[in-house]
Amino acid sequence: MVSDARFSKVHIGDLRVPMREILLSNGERVRLYDTSGPYTDRSATTDLTQGLPPLRREWILARGDVAARDEGPLRATGAPVTQLAYARAGVITREMEFVAVREGVPPEFVRDEVAAGRAIIPANVNHPETEPMIIGRNFLVKINANIGNSAVTSSIEEEVDKMTWATRWGADTVMDLSTGKDIHATREWIIRNSPVPVGTVPLYQALEKVDGVAADLSWEVYRDTLIEQCEQGVDYMTVHAGVRLAYVPLTARRKTGIVSRGGSIMAAWCLAHHRESFLYEHFADMCELLAAYDVAFSLGDGLRPGSIADANDEAQFAELRTLGELTAVARDHGVQVMVEGPGHIPMHKIKENVDLQRELCDDAPFYTLGPLVTDIAPGYDHITSGIGAAMIGWYGTAMLCYVTPKEHLGLPNRDDVKTGVITYKIAAHAADLAKGHPQAQAWDDALSDARFEFRWEDQFDLSLDPDTARSFHDETLPAAPAKTAHFCSMCGPKFCSMKISHDVRRFAAERGLAESEALAAGLAEKSAQFTEQGGRVYIPLTES
Amino acid sequence: MVSDARFSKVHIGDLRVPMREILLSNGERVRLYDTSGPYTDRSATTDLTQGLPPLRREWILARGDVAARDEGPLRATGAPVTQLAYARAGVITREMEFVAVREGVPPEFVRDEVAAGRAIIPANVNHPETEPMIIGRNFLVKINANIGNSAVTSSIEEEVDKMTWATRWGADTVMDLSTGKDIHATREWIIRNSPVPVGTVPLYQALEKVDGVAADLSWEVYRDTLIEQCEQGVDYMTVHAGVRLAYVPLTARRKTGIVSRGGSIMAAWCLAHHRESFLYEHFADMCELLAAYDVAFSLGDGLRPGSIADANDEAQFAELRTLGELTAVARDHGVQVMVEGPGHIPMHKIKENVDLQRELCDDAPFYTLGPLVTDIAPGYDHITSGIGAAMIGWYGTAMLCYVTPKEHLGLPNRDDVKTGVITYKIAAHAADLAKGHPQAQAWDDALSDARFEFRWEDQFDLSLDPDTARSFHDETLPAAPAKTAHFCSMCGPKFCSMKISHDVRRFAAERGLAESEALAAGLAEKSAQFTEQGGRVYIPLTES
Repeated sequence: MVSDARFSKVHIGDLRVPMREILLSNGERVRLYDTSGPYTDRSATTDLTQGLPPLRREWILARGDVAARDEGPLRATGAPVTQLAYARAGVITREMEFVAVREGVPPEFVRDEVAAGRAIIPANVNHPETEPMIIGRNFLVKINANIGNSAVTSSIEEEVDKMTWATRWGADTVMDLSTGKDIHATREWIIRNSPVPVGTVPLYQALEKVDGVAADLSWEVYRDTLIEQCEQGVDYMTVHAGVRLAYVPLTARRKTGIVSRGGSIMAAWCLAHHRESFLYEHFADMCELLAAYDVAFSLGDGLRPGSIADANDEAQFAELRTLGELTAVARDHGVQVMVEGPGHIPMHKIKENVDLQRELCDDAPFYTLGPLVTDIAPGYDHITSGIGAAMIGWYGTAMLCYVTPKEHLGLPNRDDVKTGVITYKIAAHAADLAKGHPQAQAWDDALSDARFEFRWEDQFDLSLDPDTARSFHDETLPAAPAKTAHFCSMCGPKFCSMKISHDVRRFAAERGLAESEALAAGLAEKSAQFTEQGGRVYIPLTES
Repeated sequence: MVSDARFSKVHIGDLRVPMREILLSNGERVRLYDTSGPYTDRSATTDLTQGLPPLRREWILARGDVAARDEGPLRATGAPVTQLAYARAGVITREMEFVAVREGVPPEFVRDEVAAGRAIIPANVNHPETEPMIIGRNFLVKINANIGNSAVTSSIEEEVDKMTWATRWGADTVMDLSTGKDIHATREWIIRNSPVPVGTVPLYQALEKVDGVAADLSWEVYRDTLIEQCEQGVDYMTVHAGVRLAYVPLTARRKTGIVSRGGSIMAAWCLAHHRESFLYEHFADMCELLAAYDVAFSLGDGLRPGSIADANDEAQFAELRTLGELTAVARDHGVQVMVEGPGHIPMHKIKENVDLQRELCDDAPFYTLGPLVTDIAPGYDHITSGIGAAMIGWYGTAMLCYVTPKEHLGLPNRDDVKTGVITYKIAAHAADLAKGHPQAQAWDDALSDARFEFRWEDQFDLSLDPDTARSFHDETLPAAPAKTAHFCSMCGPKFCSMKISHDVRRFAAERGLAESEALAAGLAEKSAQFTEQGGRVYIPLTES
């Protein structure tokens, strides 16, 4: 896709905000939001062993509020160094300016949304390689791709490759969910090479430190892990602090109990000690830590439903109320915060999730996993969840965590990652359209114009996945002339509905549109009268 | 899938209504709606050259209201022989009884829904091979798969194979949209071997008869084609009688004009002659024909939008008003009727389509193509449209016409047909769940129980596509013992969230659920108070 001369990376303004530019055959240029980083920039050279250039380093140091010990990681020297703290102080940071250009909105709007807590810009001071992006209901809907090796299989190289691959197709953030050996090393490779914010679930690494025995976890082990990850450059962290001891029994009557790994680790700990969660008890301590690096909270929904039967139950909503409480605490500490959501939810129960989250969490960005709208299609859960994701995005969810075809069955490979990302780009974009985003509509319009005018190559290039669109067309009509043909394989050369439409335009131009439209309006009125009369009276159908 | 001893075809009651029965490892049996016909019945032998056994022949003849000339096709000897006419007369036909067993509802309910025109049972007296099914908002949501060769490629054998393949995976009806040579022969093979109703667009064959020149079409050519197809056994026909001359110019200002093939043929005819559509003018004549064979109308939406930009425009809704008018005319003639819908519609404009169709067409079943919720993903339009299909099904659409990954690009092959069908089964089932269908929820529950109890083989067997589910699991954990393992590849053997949930159940049983739930309720109340106070007051997080 990027090897084609019709695609190029352009950089806008002083901040060199990257966009993907497509040169169409009619001379027009279409610019699209681009998450792929320097890897798709023909003028840049990248070397995984060196990592990406530290784009934000100067901006961070220029603020003069962080310092490093022995040239090590940066950390606040005093007050919180978060985008939230700056926004509240009225400051428009370089990160906010960058985001404003990317989203096509005024920088003041970005600042105000961040200040209100309605949006976050995940940007650890120790991840200067990231190209700033924003997560909030009043911006483009974002998607996250999960990567990370597991105890059973996969290697570091594979996971780094999945990261560059996922961002190439449109992942706005990646989460490294590694659970096996080499967690630290895997994460280091991913962060140093990632142009998008990186999220983690620190609990997974903490669990490895106590040899996988949940009961042996402690605040001390967890805190050390947090610091390690803050220093390394993780941009946001899933913390399952809402899984309180008293909520655990609420899951006992469920069909599928607790399905969140983090949630079940904490439930196991609470049960083993019959004590309140140490994450809940030490939440304020965590806030102080995260504020010193500008790491954002992603408040995990450890009690999310794992089946349609368990959707919107008391366990889930009890936890959500606690997440609302913790959101307020995090904001009081100047820490950026978003809130995670389910999971498995039938369509008619999706909206309630968004409305309740908004109310309980005071409009903090919602970040949901799907939701899957049915349980019966393992192997196709990118689709069962893509349906729910599009809907929940429309209702106001700010970021959608992808689900791959391998969900519930195995670990995603490279193809699964691509399928998951493309499916979620569809969901996010459909949500942008339904929310009336002008940039979103322009993209559909450009593709539909190309389709109507038989500009096949433009249609492919404007697709979310040009490679697949082109290869599917080749399967039926492989010859090069078919790419310029004014027909396609569905109708064949003898008859084409698109061609007729061009005749209609010609006709309308000759006869005069106004006259025809007046006639149609008259008919419509007559038809409406007929319907009002009960639709039962027979009207002669042979009017001329 | 059907070669496995764990699947069997069972036949219920006197009418031998087929169901798919799955034997689970815990001894339970799950019965699912089955569209696959005798092909998946190990006790049946099928021979494509002989066709399927004429299941309904005796029922039809026993009614004594049809006759054949020279052992040719059947035709009414007097009054309409439609399920609608019988239902209105208070008769419960064998077809209605069959449907009642399939849907798990009383036969009286089936009759009343058909009598009211809220549901149709497409069942041509010349297609006795069909297993009766019903299309209506108060029944399970159905899906249709389009097959048929085109002027450019594909053979008869391929198309018959696509039909058996599509119904095996769950297609409730098929439409033969052939446009090239051998239209009659292709259709004959499909109908004689199809256990599901077959739909067509007669205009395609009529156009072939005038060598593809739309202007040369006439009512006479079209009528002869209708009779030919009625006699052959087509169960429902798409008729684009709503494309009136005056509406054609309304499409001139559209982004993508007219995209329906049938719609553009009729628009071309109207423009060439500057006359009202002969389909509209002869609609009453058509009704008389269709009533004599019990062929149902599927009133085509020839002016459906072909892009997000054109959704819900005046051209589309002007035609819909006319379809409402024609619905009333068809019903007056005792002909069963459903109404087709779009197309390309952004999420926020979907519901309006259903509401307006319901109002204008007096609750006639709605039958929509998708809709696609964005234009930017050619190659993935099964997904862009699966999102819209699930939503529109939930809102009340009775049947969803599938879209394959090849839409807009080429002709679907066998794999594409399967992907399209599975995607649409997901959409239809998700709609059934959202509408609160008890049968639908039971299926999800059975699968989720299997998942929670680590019954891997049961989980695969209960899937929409057991082959894919099993092969995806094999990719990560190929060894046979993994199929009985109490963990999966995502978390590995050391930690498993599902396992923890079982511990929670044990714990809850020991401690007593009631006490724990009371505690949780108390916390929830406190949390709610906190939220009411504005969520700004800091609450110490270290309560013990």
